[in-house]
Formats: sequence, structure tokens, C-alpha cells
Amino acid sequence: MKTVEIDIKQIKVDDGFWNKRIRNAVENVVPYQWRVLNDREPGAAPSHAVKNFKIAAGMEEGEFYGYQFQDSDVAKWIEAASYSLIYEDSPEIRAALDEVIGILEKAQEADGYLDTHYMLKKPDKKWQEIAHGHELYCAGHMLEAAVAYHAVTGDGRLLKVMEKNVELIRSVFGTEEGKLNSYPGHEEIELALMKAYRATGDRKYYELADYFVENRGSRPGFLEEERFLELSGKEKWLGADYHQAHAKIRDQKAAEGHAVRAMYFYTGAADVALEKGDPTLRQALEALWTNVTGRRMYLTGGVGSQGDGERFTLDYDLPNDTCYTETCAAIGLAMWALRMLKLNPDSSYADVMERALYNNVLSGISEDGEHYFYVNPLMLKPDVARYRRDHESVEPERVKWFGCACCPPNVIRTLCGLGGYVYTQREDAVYQHLYLGNSASFRTSKGEASLRCVSEMPWEGRAEITYQGPAGVSLFLRIPAYAENFCIRRNGEKAEFSVEKGYAHLTPAEGDCFQVSFDMPAQYVQANPRVTEDCGRAAVCRGPLVYCAEEADNGTLLNDFIADLSQQPRAEREDSFGGIVALTAEGSRSDYGEWPEDTLYRPAGSARKQTSLRLIPYFLWNNRGVGEMLVWMNAR
Amino acid sequence: MKTVEIDIKQIKVDDGFWNKRIRNAVENVVPYQWRVLNDREPGAAPSHAVKNFKIAAGMEEGEFYGYQFQDSDVAKWIEAASYSLIYEDSPEIRAALDEVIGILEKAQEADGYLDTHYMLKKPDKKWQEIAHGHELYCAGHMLEAAVAYHAVTGDGRLLKVMEKNVELIRSVFGTEEGKLNSYPGHEEIELALMKAYRATGDRKYYELADYFVENRGSRPGFLEEERFLELSGKEKWLGADYHQAHAKIRDQKAAEGHAVRAMYFYTGAADVALEKGDPTLRQALEALWTNVTGRRMYLTGGVGSQGDGERFTLDYDLPNDTCYTETCAAIGLAMWALRMLKLNPDSSYADVMERALYNNVLSGISEDGEHYFYVNPLMLKPDVARYRRDHESVEPERVKWFGCACCPPNVIRTLCGLGGYVYTQREDAVYQHLYLGNSASFRTSKGEASLRCVSEMPWEGRAEITYQGPAGVSLFLRIPAYAENFCIRRNGEKAEFSVEKGYAHLTPAEGDCFQVSFDMPAQYVQANPRVTEDCGRAAVCRGPLVYCAEEADNGTLLNDFIADLSQQPRAEREDSFGGIVALTAEGSRSDYGEWPEDTLYRPAGSARKQTSLRLIPYFLWNNRGVGEMLVWMNAR
Repeated sequence: MKTVEIDIKQIKVDDGFWNKRIRNAVENVVPYQWRVLNDREPGAAPSHAVKNFKIAAGMEEGEFYGYQFQDSDVAKWIEAASYSLIYEDSPEIRAALDEVIGILEKAQEADGYLDTHYMLKKPDKKWQEIAHGHELYCAGHMLEAAVAYHAVTGDGRLLKVMEKNVELIRSVFGTEEGKLNSYPGHEEIELALMKAYRATGDRKYYELADYFVENRGSRPGFLEEERFLELSGKEKWLGADYHQAHAKIRDQKAAEGHAVRAMYFYTGAADVALEKGDPTLRQALEALWTNVTGRRMYLTGGVGSQGDGERFTLDYDLPNDTCYTETCAAIGLAMWALRMLKLNPDSSYADVMERALYNNVLSGISEDGEHYFYVNPLMLKPDVARYRRDHESVEPERVKWFGCACCPPNVIRTLCGLGGYVYTQREDAVYQHLYLGNSASFRTSKGEASLRCVSEMPWEGRAEITYQGPAGVSLFLRIPAYAENFCIRRNGEKAEFSVEKGYAHLTPAEGDCFQVSFDMPAQYVQANPRVTEDCGRAAVCRGPLVYCAEEADNGTLLNDFIADLSQQPRAEREDSFGGIVALTAEGSRSDYGEWPEDTLYRPAGSARKQTSLRLIPYFLWNNRGVGEMLVWMNAR
Repeated sequence: MKTVEIDIKQIKVDDGFWNKRIRNAVENVVPYQWRVLNDREPGAAPSHAVKNFKIAAGMEEGEFYGYQFQDSDVAKWIEAASYSLIYEDSPEIRAALDEVIGILEKAQEADGYLDTHYMLKKPDKKWQEIAHGHELYCAGHMLEAAVAYHAVTGDGRLLKVMEKNVELIRSVFGTEEGKLNSYPGHEEIELALMKAYRATGDRKYYELADYFVENRGSRPGFLEEERFLELSGKEKWLGADYHQAHAKIRDQKAAEGHAVRAMYFYTGAADVALEKGDPTLRQALEALWTNVTGRRMYLTGGVGSQGDGERFTLDYDLPNDTCYTETCAAIGLAMWALRMLKLNPDSSYADVMERALYNNVLSGISEDGEHYFYVNPLMLKPDVARYRRDHESVEPERVKWFGCACCPPNVIRTLCGLGGYVYTQREDAVYQHLYLGNSASFRTSKGEASLRCVSEMPWEGRAEITYQGPAGVSLFLRIPAYAENFCIRRNGEKAEFSVEKGYAHLTPAEGDCFQVSFDMPAQYVQANPRVTEDCGRAAVCRGPLVYCAEEADNGTLLNDFIADLSQQPRAEREDSFGGIVALTAEGSRSDYGEWPEDTLYRPAGSARKQTSLRLIPYFLWNNRGVGEMLVWMNAR
């Protein structure tokens, strides 16, 4: 069944839960970021990102400033700003986009090269520092930006710039004599090339992506050639597996290395597999998916269990306090899930995608939209997080936006581009993976179809979906794994439907209104006993949301609480945080009067007091000051 | 009440539990170490320690080799070898001691200087690298060796060498104009000087110790003067508090920094306080003792909760898997406890001393006497310990002796000098702190007294103590905190006694035989709920011994076991390990059939199966191959 690409422009999210977040991104953050990139925001750390391009374009004097991936900040902004036009067709943003693309056109060298870090600072080192130079990473993000800009505005200027850039890359990399037979340090170009292929239909993009995916892990690789490890001495954490280059993809049995790199690689590889129709490549990705989701992923959809190397470690090694669980990696997991859905529309992929978006991704941004987390731990004790070496990646509170480059722009483009995660399409079948309010249109062989969805998620399992369009179109509505008493009414009548890989299969008629409903009881969740840190513990989920306990509600010493698993957590709708469902867990705590401060150990048998803990959605933690937080509670 | 020093020679341990360990040290390790120090042991890593002194003495040609504290290996050997003569008056060991002391005499420079690292390698840098040069550390250990050698043999040659060395140190350090007004990087000299003072009565030793203790923390210190932190960039872990130099001792409110350094410092300071009679210094040490034992010590008597810096971290921060709990630090804690007992004979000090010796110290050496642990974790998963950065200090198995310098010789001198921990004496009162078999004699104002003790500890709470000597001598027998139904029979009759600070006060007559008995039921222990990692968990103790579960007995996934606190652990005498008491804990485990390998999370409610765990004494872990180990079990 052939995948039909849905243009991002065809989907507009309009959802009671997501609107304020999208609106903040569109109205505040995208303009803010533009000012920051142009060093026009008082109080913000210098960016120099646009200036680097202006210098390269000969429009200004100066020197390069920033990280070797500084260019990608501009690319991510262009992408987010493009998506934002779907929600608000701002003349200022259009003008800014127009301006920056003009600068990029001017900056691009005659042969198509476009990376200011090398153009301005190390022109003699182009393509010689593949391990960490980030040239292909920056190219990939700019290509994504070009595709997004064209998709929303119809303007192909940046695509033209990047097409020339890709031609250059094709001339540099490959198996032919005289070319660099290699692959990027930080994966990203692969998924971007596939986006460009799908947008343009030009096979050269696909062939280059395929080359980079299939060649990864070949020897000698950049690590040997650049003597990177010898020179850095950091074999254990930054070696071949850090780069997912320890083997060819079909021989990679587990997710290894830097989590963001891994997620981007698997995303690009899955997209290649979709085009290629090669079952062995698809199976390799399915095996990796099983390894991640079955052995190396946090309940919140976080991946990355160690700060050193920002990476995977071992199967079932999932510490809750010393993890890395980077916001960007969870975004990557959602991106990968989307490609797996295209390969095979099985709702288990969507369950993970939703879990990541509503938990580890969303916790990356504060309620006020101005502070960000890199690391999203599942347990926090502020003094320990500030002090210990093994917690040095963990911040006890979110930091002001754009203190540092990569995660905030990623969150913003994800929010602005959220529509891209709702649906996939195969020929005349539309799959809805997420119940969030939106209007969407689809091109089918029988003509244009549209859906309008209104949803009460994530608080209630209710959504209303109205179809307009021709007959003969299939609609597949996801049945979440956590849904109980899932039921669909069609125009008021209970609907019959077959279930295919976790989707309710319907064949709508013009004007049909489907009311989806299901229960989402709050429930205790336990982990595989191989996960040491979760033994004797339970977490609480309600629908897609993972819940947590915070000090602001419950005081300190959250780990002392022992939840009573015989009593289901109680849900209550309340007005805090603009309206949420909070939960109450019953259990017990120590009698602190029995434990003077200077007493460490005593015979067991201290009295415990019946008490309860108030739980809020995990993504909402750390919006009321610094304090303890806990997802996996002791339980019996 | 005036402390009476008991010469080490006056106490000979002869105990069913300790004999094999002492005999191994005396018969195997002391001769082995001599061969290693002389590079005469095939297969051992080069030491060069004796050769360094020979070169300095002009007896051989060559260059310095080893750590800056290499000399201290020789010193610790001399000390251990001296003690070993108490157990076996070996002509070979006597000859070796005689030989090495002759070399030291020849090596010593005219002004008294004696540190081969500087003499041979950096003669222009003497006394200029106080932060990490270890000159005073080496001098301290050599002084301890000199005192031990003289105490056992009556030979004062090495004492004479070190007296000259101390005179030099006195001329270099002090408050007078032209002197270095400082204090050592690694504390050790303080406690050694006090040993020398007590052995010789010469106040210069005391005065220098007092100076070093009281001056510590003064500014500018060596850190500023040597720009050590600037040059190393390691402020957070290796700063002033790493060296316990962040404040003067009376202003040090908590135990900070490198744990071994801290323990040696507090030991020397307590000894100074004993001599000084200054209540504020004593109170400072009592406050530090309370902080360590009430907030920063592991159940096993381990101290040091982080590998980076081998140091203390925060109150109640006591992770079981990423701790440092160095064998040497527990030895230091026992040394400090002994001084605190001299300051104030309160049995709570002895409880800690015993706990450290029987657990964290003893686990530092394998049953075969040939392998050592630096780090003594309270939880181990081998694959995680080998992989994760935050476990990089943790070895999953003991290493062959003398792979690296400091802990093994410390264990050996502690075993050979174990008699020094059994008794203290104040005027005509003898305190017995440990129930282990021994013969001991004491000088009292009324004449010589002697005790002979036979004990079944640590397996049974029974000891028989026979007194020979004049009337009017007080005998204080410790009542361990864990003892139940403590009772003493005197010549077969139930004895009456007053209890003073946890000691049974008796006034024996010539020939009296005291039978001490108490019950030591195996019991669950819990930790202060402020200790995050021990929440919802319990450990098992029986008498002085902490118990643990090992994979060898129980398979993997030890953390999955949930102990049933309503059932006391069951004790059984058995023949394994040459005869121990093993324990059985009742509880439950998951049904592993319900948990396929690629499943991480599921709703709570999985069945659990009733089962039990076999527990062995903690010090015996890792004598049957590599595997999981756990002290703090999940418990309900």
C-alpha cells in the first residue's frame, strides 16, 4: 500500500489542550527567537547565527561566532516559522523569512557550499572533520527548513539553494573513486533528504539518503581516519557506538550511543526502508524498535540513560535520577514512531509516539513557555541534583529559553508542526493516531476528503470526528492501549467496526459524525523486574499521561511514601494549571517524629501513618518552584 | 581520668574467627609484600619501593619509580611486620626489618629529610607541593612504623631516624617568621605524632600535632599558594573541603571531603583533644562524630558516598551502588572511634568501631586473603558496575593484592594490629570493647593485671573472660547495642553490675571467670526516611554482622524480592565458609513467566510467588565468583 504524503499545510491543529502551547510558540517564541538570532534581544546570550550568514554573504564584516552547528539554529527557526504561518499568517514573520532566505542565497558559495563555521573559520577543513564538524547536520536541518517553507508558502527559493547544496554533497560523498566514502557524525541529513524526496519526487535525494543509511558503519570510518578517539581519549562513551557506527544497520541489534543521534538515524533509515521496500531493512528497524521500547525506554517516552555521552547504556538499565532523557531524544522517538507507522500502521507505534509527546517532550517546556529542560528525570531531589557528579546533567529547574542552542528550537518546531503527527495516509485510507482537535484535508483517488476533530483529550477519552468527502475512503481510528470500553457512535448509533492492528476501521459517508469514547481509569503501572530501580515501585498513568508527585503538593521525602496498590488512584477534575485532572494515591508514610535527625538506622517496625499523595501530570512538574519530584513510587 | 596507653605487645589475639585471617596476614601476606616491595615476586607489578630508598642511600644506581607516596608502602610494611612478630617471631622477618631500617638510616639526609620521591626526583621542590606532595603523609606512616617497631622489639633505631625527621619538620613548619605556616595535604602526620608522643613522652611530638590540627584551614592555605585548583580545574571535588581545610576544625559542622583524609584528620584531632583537655575541641569532634554516624555513614561502617573525590557528599545522601566506601576509610573510622573511646568511654563509639571492622573493613579482603576491594558497595549488578560512568570506581570483584598501593597494606596492618582495638584503659579501669579471643596484660597502679578471653563472636553472643591480678581494678565489659538478654555470670553465679555508658562495670578478684552471654536475634533494620535509596527497604543484621543476598545463592534480580517484615529472618549454623551463621528471609518475587524480555511496563497486579532469600554475612560476599549482591532489600 502506497503511502500518501500529507502536506503539513493540510492540517491545522485547533485543540483545547494544545492551543495555548501552539499559540505561545507562534505568537511569542518564534518572534523572540528571530530577535535572539539577530542579537536584537536585550539580555539574551549572543547568538550571532544570522550575522554569521551575513558575513559569509559579504553583507557585514566580522568573524564566525558560536558552535560548529550554529547554522542549524537558523534552519530550525525557518522551519518553525514556516509552520507558524499555518496558525497566523504574520507579515512580519513572512518578511523575516524572506529576508533570511535572501541572506542564505547570497551566502551560498558558487559550488553550493553553505556552512558558515567552515566558510568563515576553517575553509581549508571542509569535509575533513566529519566526526564532529556537523556540516551534514546543518545541511539536513536547512533542507528540512527548505521543505517546510515550500510546503507552507509555495516559495521554492530555499529549496533551490539546498538543491544546489545537495548536489555538492553528492559530488563529495559516495563510493566512486575520488569521493569520500563516509557518513555523517551526527545523523540528520538522512531524514531531511527523505523529506526533500517526498516533497519533490526527485530520486537523487532518496539515493543519497539510502547511501548514508546503508554505508553507516563501514570501515574505515571517520573515527579512524580523523583519529578522533586517539586525540580525545574518550573511547568508552564517544566511540563508534556513540555514533551508531559500530556496525552496519542490519547488524545493529540494540540501540546504542547518543540517543538523539540514534533517534534521527533510525528515523531516516525507516523512511528509506519505506521507499526501498527492503524487508531486511524494515526488520532491522523493527528489531531496534523492540529493543528501545521493550528494554531501553522510560515510561515517559524518554530515551538516554546516562549523562556521559548523552546515551543509551544497557538493556533494562533505567535509573530514574541519573538518566539523560533529553527532550530532543523524545522528539526523535516521536519522529521515528511516525515513520514506523508509515511502514506498518500498528497502533503500538502510536501509543509510544503519544506517550513521548505528552510526557517527555511536553515536560521540556514550562507552562509559561519561556523555560526549558534538556534532561527530564523521573525522580528529583534538588540538593542531590545540584551536588553529585553523577547528576551533573540534571537541572532541578528549567532554564530560560535559549541559554543554550538545541532543545528549545526543537520543541518549538515540534509544537508548530504538531499537525504532522496526527495522521498518516495510505492510498485511500486515512489513519488518525492522536485524538487532538484539528481540521485536516486529504487527497484521495476519489477526491478531496476532510476531517474535523474536536477532542477532550488528554483529560477525557472523548473525541468527535466529522467526515466530509467521497465514499470509498477508509478511516482508521486508533484504539489506545490504555482505552477501556472503547466505543464509536456513528451519527448517534453504536457503530460496528473491524479492528486492524489496533485501529477501528470505518468507511465513512459524507457528513458522518463519529463520536469516539473510551474510559481512561487512573491505574498503577509496574515495570519489568529486570529494571532494578523500579523494583518494588509503581507509577501512575491515566490515558497518555504519566503522573508524578511533587513537593509543592506533598512536602519532601516523597520516596518514603508507600502506595497501596489495592486502592486505585482517584481522579478529580480541577482548575489548577488552567484545568487538569489530578489524582490521589492512597498509602502510608513514616512517622517522622520517630526519626530524629541524627539517627540513621534502627530496628524495623517503626509506625507508619495512613496518608495520600496528590499527583499531577508529569509534564507539569517544576512549574511551581524547585522541589522534589517522583514518578516511580514505592508501592505494595 | 588519665588514659593509660596499652602497648600493642601486651595484647595477643587468639580468636576462632580472626585467627585464620591474622595467620594468613602474618604467614603469607607480610612475607609476600616484602618480596613485592623488593621486586622479587614474579608476576607482581613493579614496586621499586625499597629500591628507591637504596638509591637514596647510595647503595644502588637508578631513578625514582612509583607514586609520590611510594615510601609509605615500606612504612606500612614495617608496621605490619612489626605487629606480626607478636604472632610469629620469624627470624626472616626480623632480618628483613633490620635490613630495611639499615637502608633508611643510610638514606636519610644530614638534615633529617627522608622522602625518596623528592630526594631522587625533585630535590628542588621539597616542601613546596604540600597539597599533593605527600611528604608529611609518608613521614607520618614512617613514624607509625617506628613506634610499632620499637613497641614490639624494643629497638629504637627507626624511632631515632624519625625523631631527626620530625625535628626537621618542626624547623620547616610553624608560625614563626621564615617558617611555612601550613598543614599537610593528606592528613596522617597528626595521628602519627600523637602515637610517637604517647610512646616517648616527648612533648615536641604533641606540640607539632597540635599545631597541625589547630592550624588546618588557616589562610592562605596550600591550595591558594600552589594555585592547585587553578591548575587542575577541579574545584568542586578537590577544593578546600576535599582536604578538610575549608574552615578551622571547631567551625567544621559536617564531615566533608575525601573520606580517608577526613578520618585520619579526626583521628589525630581526637588524640590531640585527649591530651589537650580542651572541651571545645572535644565538642567539635563529637559534633563531627554525630554528623558522620547520624547522617553520612553506611550501615556497614562505610563512609564516602561518591567516587569523584572519594568523598562525602550531603547529609543522608547514601546511594548503595554508586558509593565509594573505601576499605581504608572504614579503617580510619575504626581508628577514630578508638580515640573517641579514649576521650569518653561510651559504648556507642565501640558499636560503630565493631560494625566497621566486621563489615566494611573485613569485606576489603577475600577469604583466600589474596584479593582486595577498594570500594565496598551495598548493592552490585556486575554489568551495570562495569558499564556506567557513575559506577566507574566500583569493581564487581576483588583484585589481586598489590595491584595498587594503599588499601591492602592498610588491611594487613589492621589485622596484625587488631589487638589495639580490643581494650582501652583509664588509670585502673580496663574497658573491653570487642569480644574476641585474646590474652592481654595491663599495667595498673596496683600491679600487673591480665585478662584471657575466649569468644564465640560473631556467631554467638558468648564470651568467657578470666581475670588475674590485684583487687581494685575495674573491668568494663561492653553491652552491644544489639544485645538482648545481656547477662554476666561470675564464677557460675549471676553477677550484679552497674551500667555506665553502655558498659557493665565489674570489680574482679584474682581468678574470677566471667561468662558474658547475650542473644543476637537476626533482625530487620530500616533507615531514616531521609535516606532516599533505603526508603521502602530493609537490611538484615545479626549482632555486629550486616547480611547480604548474593546471586550465587539466589539467582539474579535480587531487587525484585520483597521481604516480609512480619517474619523475622531465620538463623542457621552451617559449614560453608568454614562455619558461619546464615540467614533466611521470607518474602516474595515476581512470576518471571509473566514478564517476557521485551516488555517494560504493564498495569500493576502481576502475581508474586512466595519465596525466600538466603543471606550470608556481608564481609563474605564475592568469594564465589562475580554476581549480584544486595544489602538493602525491598521490604514491606
